[in-house]
Amino acid sequence: MKIEFITLKETFLSALVRNGFSLERAHPIATVFAETTFDGVFSHGINRFPRFISDIKSGIVVAGAVPELISDMNALEQWDGRQGAGISNALHCTERSLELARQYGIGCVGLRNTNHWMRGGTYGWKAAEEGFMFMGWTNTTPNMPPWGGNAPSLGNNPFVLALPHGEGDIVLDMAMSQYSYGKLEWHKKCGTKLPEYGGYNRDNQLTKDPSEILASERILPIGLWKGSALSLVLDLAAAIIAGGNSTKKIGEQKTETNLSQVFISIDVERHLGREQLNQLVRETLSFNSMRNESAQFPGQRSLRNRNYHHEHGVEIPEEIWEEILQLSGD
Amino acid sequence: MKIEFITLKETFLSALVRNGFSLERAHPIATVFAETTFDGVFSHGINRFPRFISDIKSGIVVAGAVPELISDMNALEQWDGRQGAGISNALHCTERSLELARQYGIGCVGLRNTNHWMRGGTYGWKAAEEGFMFMGWTNTTPNMPPWGGNAPSLGNNPFVLALPHGEGDIVLDMAMSQYSYGKLEWHKKCGTKLPEYGGYNRDNQLTKDPSEILASERILPIGLWKGSALSLVLDLAAAIIAGGNSTKKIGEQKTETNLSQVFISIDVERHLGREQLNQLVRETLSFNSMRNESAQFPGQRSLRNRNYHHEHGVEIPEEIWEEILQLSGD
Repeated sequence: MKIEFITLKETFLSALVRNGFSLERAHPIATVFAETTFDGVFSHGINRFPRFISDIKSGIVVAGAVPELISDMNALEQWDGRQGAGISNALHCTERSLELARQYGIGCVGLRNTNHWMRGGTYGWKAAEEGFMFMGWTNTTPNMPPWGGNAPSLGNNPFVLALPHGEGDIVLDMAMSQYSYGKLEWHKKCGTKLPEYGGYNRDNQLTKDPSEILASERILPIGLWKGSALSLVLDLAAAIIAGGNSTKKIGEQKTETNLSQVFISIDVERHLGREQLNQLVRETLSFNSMRNESAQFPGQRSLRNRNYHHEHGVEIPEEIWEEILQLSGD
Repeated sequence: MKIEFITLKETFLSALVRNGFSLERAHPIATVFAETTFDGVFSHGINRFPRFISDIKSGIVVAGAVPELISDMNALEQWDGRQGAGISNALHCTERSLELARQYGIGCVGLRNTNHWMRGGTYGWKAAEEGFMFMGWTNTTPNMPPWGGNAPSLGNNPFVLALPHGEGDIVLDMAMSQYSYGKLEWHKKCGTKLPEYGGYNRDNQLTKDPSEILASERILPIGLWKGSALSLVLDLAAAIIAGGNSTKKIGEQKTETNLSQVFISIDVERHLGREQLNQLVRETLSFNSMRNESAQFPGQRSLRNRNYHHEHGVEIPEEIWEEILQLSGD
């Protein structure tokens, strides 16, 4: 069924308030879940919302927790998320990094003891909309074998790089695995093969069969040894900047929590000038196109989805909508 | 033949002085070419040195040029490399980013109109040795097709992420292509196949045959569509922060020059404390190993080569040594 933005957001809002959030604190979380859904990223939008509520109920996410400043060094700050909602903590630290960048040109915030930030792109969009470049990443629970290994000891550590652009911000949001587990499950459900190799099967052969990879748990890092190494250094950098857990420690817990994240903003629009920036981006994009993707540059597909859904509403499968309505008390 | 560090460095030094560098300005360049060679990276060390000299002779590299500060915003600076030696410019901007990070916690420098920085890892090692995290990248001439495309319009834009670590700094230095053209040439010369798929042949099939890829010029981005997108945003970010050329503009020149680069340093050792940092890295590394590589973490192989060569000297093929001696006037 077709749902409008305001309906979706208010339904999330109601569910959050029923589960211990003040209206003020529920509002940005509900907005991000609705925006993510409207951008077409259901996996971290509406489809993930029920799990977020159950994480509150089980105490993994502490609804009342507010992030605390641990230390600061001018343009570099360290915050403790105190197991609060990942979206709230990440929005707060994005804002802090923007504030620092306004003051110093660049700002960097490390955040420890936080929860899943849902769609990483959210924070890139926020910064780019205000004319800032953004670079951020999170570590995760161990879910990817290092190159040459066969047991997951690396996280797939999503990385975001966003740039402001008058004709549509550029927002890259990518994990260090070639395919997410969500994508593998989806292909399995549809009975389709992956378009490219996604991992090794139990016989040590590269495969496009999602079931074989789900069974072996040997998902492929992007660029093989390169993505494996990049994942490792992003994990270490996040833990060091945040003074928090690395993927190893996260894996020792029963569930994925107490993550470490990094938020870096750069005041590029003021630095270069808006006109020059837009011209440079336009020229470069005209030269390149990711031709067999549905988008010419990272972020373009989200923007198209967003515009389309704001005009027409977003189609939500009935059983999911029923589940969300129940959580919201309607 | 076996060459000692001091001999190698002084031979480079002599060649640089004969080609227009003052002794003071030649010294760091000679040191970096010698260090790169001793770390085992001949492609950007001794093997590249003759081309560097010929680039001076042809005016691509201006020996006397000194970088100029264009603008600054506290922790964010923009420099013009004025077509000077890539190593000199990049060392200067690394130092500037370190100085800014000492003052502000994090520092970011954009550098435009510079030349090839040779081994990107050089700047990561410098920062890590002083207790700083480093993130830096450069754009290049178009040398890689975007995912789904068949003509090179992206650069392979090497990216460096370095972290200090008491038991050996961690220095990741990776281009956005799965294999470098140098590696393809090397496999072709040896008559060996690539260990993994490296690109498409003219029949649109993935191949491990280096000759087929050299013929098609369809080298594979790491992570396919992901590395393609990452390469694009790194190029844009470098051009924006530096106020310089993107890969598109670089490709319009006759040769690879007037590049844009980014240098970001973070004062992590002071931020977190040396002991806590070392402990965190040690624990995380013990949990992970890139098992079929000869190194457990990025940078370890370079360090091993460095230690071995400082003890035993480095083995240089006689014809290359002869060429270097001629350039130096001996």
